[in-house]
Amino acid sequence: MFKINQNYQKLPGSYLFSTIAQKVSAFTASHPDKEIIRLGIGDVTQPLAPAVIAAMHQAVDEMGNAATFHGYAPDLGYGFLRDAIAEHDYKSRGCAVSPDEIFVSDGAKSDSANIQEIFGQENRIAVCDPVYPVYVDSNVMAGRTGDYDSKAETWSNVIYMPCTMENGFVPEFPKETPDMVYLCLPNNPTGTTIPKAKLQEWVDYANKVGAVIIYDAAYEAYISEPDVAHSIYECEGAKTCAIELKSFSKNAGFTGVRLGYTVVPKELKCGEVSLHQMWARRHGTKFNGAPYIVQRAGEATYSPEGKAQLREQVAYYMKNAAAIKNGLKDAGYTVFGGVNAPYIWLKTPGNMTSWEFFDYLLEQANVVGTPGSGFGPSGEGYFRLTAFGTYENTLAALKRIQEL
Amino acid sequence: MFKINQNYQKLPGSYLFSTIAQKVSAFTASHPDKEIIRLGIGDVTQPLAPAVIAAMHQAVDEMGNAATFHGYAPDLGYGFLRDAIAEHDYKSRGCAVSPDEIFVSDGAKSDSANIQEIFGQENRIAVCDPVYPVYVDSNVMAGRTGDYDSKAETWSNVIYMPCTMENGFVPEFPKETPDMVYLCLPNNPTGTTIPKAKLQEWVDYANKVGAVIIYDAAYEAYISEPDVAHSIYECEGAKTCAIELKSFSKNAGFTGVRLGYTVVPKELKCGEVSLHQMWARRHGTKFNGAPYIVQRAGEATYSPEGKAQLREQVAYYMKNAAAIKNGLKDAGYTVFGGVNAPYIWLKTPGNMTSWEFFDYLLEQANVVGTPGSGFGPSGEGYFRLTAFGTYENTLAALKRIQEL
Repeated sequence: MFKINQNYQKLPGSYLFSTIAQKVSAFTASHPDKEIIRLGIGDVTQPLAPAVIAAMHQAVDEMGNAATFHGYAPDLGYGFLRDAIAEHDYKSRGCAVSPDEIFVSDGAKSDSANIQEIFGQENRIAVCDPVYPVYVDSNVMAGRTGDYDSKAETWSNVIYMPCTMENGFVPEFPKETPDMVYLCLPNNPTGTTIPKAKLQEWVDYANKVGAVIIYDAAYEAYISEPDVAHSIYECEGAKTCAIELKSFSKNAGFTGVRLGYTVVPKELKCGEVSLHQMWARRHGTKFNGAPYIVQRAGEATYSPEGKAQLREQVAYYMKNAAAIKNGLKDAGYTVFGGVNAPYIWLKTPGNMTSWEFFDYLLEQANVVGTPGSGFGPSGEGYFRLTAFGTYENTLAALKRIQEL
Repeated sequence: MFKINQNYQKLPGSYLFSTIAQKVSAFTASHPDKEIIRLGIGDVTQPLAPAVIAAMHQAVDEMGNAATFHGYAPDLGYGFLRDAIAEHDYKSRGCAVSPDEIFVSDGAKSDSANIQEIFGQENRIAVCDPVYPVYVDSNVMAGRTGDYDSKAETWSNVIYMPCTMENGFVPEFPKETPDMVYLCLPNNPTGTTIPKAKLQEWVDYANKVGAVIIYDAAYEAYISEPDVAHSIYECEGAKTCAIELKSFSKNAGFTGVRLGYTVVPKELKCGEVSLHQMWARRHGTKFNGAPYIVQRAGEATYSPEGKAQLREQVAYYMKNAAAIKNGLKDAGYTVFGGVNAPYIWLKTPGNMTSWEFFDYLLEQANVVGTPGSGFGPSGEGYFRLTAFGTYENTLAALKRIQEL
């Protein structure tokens, strides 16, 4: 008789955003007259940029013509896209990342969940707390996290790096030595960044203890301050210790288009074994390339028009971020993030738990946010709002919260 | 110090089709004047159908307009596509598969590689020999296959079901009891099918011994004979023992578009645990949906125009298949497949090994095929040609082979 992967049984509850979706559905069903404003899941609302739309139409036409039709994409991505990424995301910032170190994928969520596969079962992971749930859940499924303590809401074999108001939401080097460290900067959910000098300390630490850093730079486009690194490869020595994940979802609104990439440097090795080769093998065996049309859309984000249009889109969302942050401050809330990230991280008022505040906001203001505790135990008492709504909805939601 | 997944080190050589691509590149570089005809990798050559192109253009326009923009897709696929699949691929054939048993993905390759994740490490897999390499390689990466015997080219913990000329390329029930059985019908690479009554025997066997069948129906559209099942759910009892994988790559030319789906019936359980819920959890945690534009393209394949256009495309390729099959027979080759499948499986002439014949064809006829031994030890002495070329190229390749 076949057996299941028992690790799945250890997972408590459902994926955070599925739970939220169910709660919202239930509320909508019982209050059909209420107009909900969603500032929960980090989904964009602005349409794709004209340069991207034009590139996609052209690519669709190519696919309809025998002479320009494209079948299977190269396993690791089209050269035109890998070249554009290497040029604009790395070379222009002084990072020596070559096109063949870039693996194009269907998005950073898949990559961030799949990357653990090339590591041994016995590795210990370290994560910020609070944290994007996929890092931990994918390791639970792989059996790397030990047992779940439902009271503490922690895993016995995971090293947690609490990020709270007390330490400015910046992770400290853990007491126990990790093998893999997940860092997301600018941070989801807290919106925090660290100066480049501080990131360099993490790179030095990883090289010293022999840990690999899984660096999630999905929100890089929202960095507005000059001393914050856009890529971990701006730090010296990062190519021997860091894998970088990038998304087109937030800088270009590709949440429904699906495109991302992962950099695995050739220098990154475990003994003689190249992680670059392992990831190439994984990609070649378990993935079949991002759609041609989507890769052309990605290329268009690097054209002069594309870049200008995306800068405007990011500015639009950052105007929302500033409005939420300032508006909530004026209403007496304690608020973080929103400067180098599209997320506002707030302290729940009156000692409410995160889920109590979620229900309160949903029921009283018909606004959906994300409970901080859904990202980990140290997120308890916090709450995340995103800047990805429309400006009108953002102001409307803010007004409703201010009037509570 | 971090450790790697040692199972990757066990994988012999590179992924089959990467090896072929490298050999062809090397030959082209040293013989720039030779015009290569590729009948190796199963990649389509006909452009996307007009109905699909129209749907994609419309979806691109929607993505460029705030009022019709689509962000994150529902985890498991859009309702419009899941409904169309349920109606046209199942209900119309008398199979009771509901839309919420259908999980939309970026293709059957990913699904066929990922599906093993929800099963326990201790399961033993059974595969046909020869077989699509992804089934075995994904289980190697997961550590489920034991040790590799490089002489026999087999894994110690894999149950092989030889499919050779002697048994008509039809797998027999293995002597040892498997937990998971991979069946691909119509078969890649041999082009074989089995009658529905024979498939029913497999379903009865799986239910009796408590095995799960991973049924890869990627080539279903090429079935031309009436007594061959288009879905395993045409067999009684399949919903308690079978997962079905489907692709849009071969019936609709989506190799560069990327769309597939997997059916995990709600009745499929291990004790009290629902595999449907496990796969939903996997999908929700490690995948973020197929692109909206691509799902609209998929929907268009089920419209009356789409269906008619795809029937023509399949007929085009099957005309190639018939031409290759008959042409090779006339030239004295022993040939199989090509009736219910786009693959021609031939016995190599003069006792050549599969790779010897590969080199011979590449060098003497400048035609690329796939060595049978690349699919497993019982494929040695066989060779695969695909019908996915253009008609002109197919005839030209045939002429070159006939003239050898």
